[in-house]
Amino acid sequence: MRKSVVLLSGGLDSTTVLYQARAEGYACYALSFEYGQRHRRELEAAAQVAGRAGVVEHQVVRFDLARWGGSALTETALDIPEHRSLADMTAGIPVTYVPARNTIFLSFALAWAEVLGAEAIHVGVNALDYSGYPDCRPDYLAAMAEVFRLGTRQGREGRPIQVVAPLLHLHKAEIVRLGETLGVPWAATWSCYRGEAMACGVCDACLLRRQGFAELGLTDPLPYAV
Amino acid sequence: MRKSVVLLSGGLDSTTVLYQARAEGYACYALSFEYGQRHRRELEAAAQVAGRAGVVEHQVVRFDLARWGGSALTETALDIPEHRSLADMTAGIPVTYVPARNTIFLSFALAWAEVLGAEAIHVGVNALDYSGYPDCRPDYLAAMAEVFRLGTRQGREGRPIQVVAPLLHLHKAEIVRLGETLGVPWAATWSCYRGEAMACGVCDACLLRRQGFAELGLTDPLPYAV
Repeated sequence: MRKSVVLLSGGLDSTTVLYQARAEGYACYALSFEYGQRHRRELEAAAQVAGRAGVVEHQVVRFDLARWGGSALTETALDIPEHRSLADMTAGIPVTYVPARNTIFLSFALAWAEVLGAEAIHVGVNALDYSGYPDCRPDYLAAMAEVFRLGTRQGREGRPIQVVAPLLHLHKAEIVRLGETLGVPWAATWSCYRGEAMACGVCDACLLRRQGFAELGLTDPLPYAV
Repeated sequence: MRKSVVLLSGGLDSTTVLYQARAEGYACYALSFEYGQRHRRELEAAAQVAGRAGVVEHQVVRFDLARWGGSALTETALDIPEHRSLADMTAGIPVTYVPARNTIFLSFALAWAEVLGAEAIHVGVNALDYSGYPDCRPDYLAAMAEVFRLGTRQGREGRPIQVVAPLLHLHKAEIVRLGETLGVPWAATWSCYRGEAMACGVCDACLLRRQGFAELGLTDPLPYAV
């Protein structure tokens, strides 16, 4: 059976990608990171989702990116933006950008994929709603694909590990629609940049998510604070 | 002052690169990894070398690659090859290859470099003596340079962090000669794949190192077991 390492944050996007990989017939190996993010809520969501999806294995790699700061997702001293318009979200690189985070995540996925003999890595990056992030764009993923090809034994032997990003060119509502057809358990996912008892409803991640459900006339089963 | 993040394993090559970066006028930030390697000896060497070279800061990032296995450098159940010829060392990918290790190391260097506003990352990869390793070759480094350019804020803003690999096309003896001119404290470095009281003298790393000194008619000040 073909294997894939799926980067799983426990959010709406990566969970949809996990269900997509499963639907494509891959044996899925879910990979999450405890990297010094503000909260553990998303890791709990990832564990729950991995269990629901029936992955072969779920691993959590631990390291500390918070030591370097530089992002509102690792520095509690920096405020998470609220009530922003989509235009504002995509106008520049957001304060929630974590330097080189996706490159680090994909590198670990590459290591595990090569040891497993996996043929793919599935990742939920999205170039539309998250176009502000440099490491969520198609040209960046193409560069990583070259690294996958040249930096591994499998790649040098002509069987490069593929980067699969099924959400790259989808809007949030299209992702929700895809997830609906795949049976994604939305209530088990966590998108909010904060990790409080309820999703805040006003950070970029909450706003995009709610907008996605609203455009389809669907109700997000997750409770929101406001 | 221009800043560089220098990947420092504490071995002959990375130490020479650190002294080279220093000679080029960079403020040096040394970065080492405790990734589940067989021994801590090289980390002690890295700390000593960083102190001797007067780096601005030396950080050690910790994570666990040994969980996945796949390399004689992380699995004690795998034997480290001994008494190999250079032809054998470069004929294929050695069992000491650690899947995606350089990609992971360079990704962390990229994260720190971006937070520091550094303009370079110095790395001691070598495409001659280590040509067996897929992630020590020029085309691989060129692919990583594209990732550096496209995956970061600095790169997108037209100031990409440069990958500097001054040893890429040097033979070991040429590296030793360079290190001599730079005043590298050889006795403080550690190259041996084993981490015993004395360097084993017969693993690939020891053999290459001794050969380098011998070709120049120099004596390696490090004591060897055999």
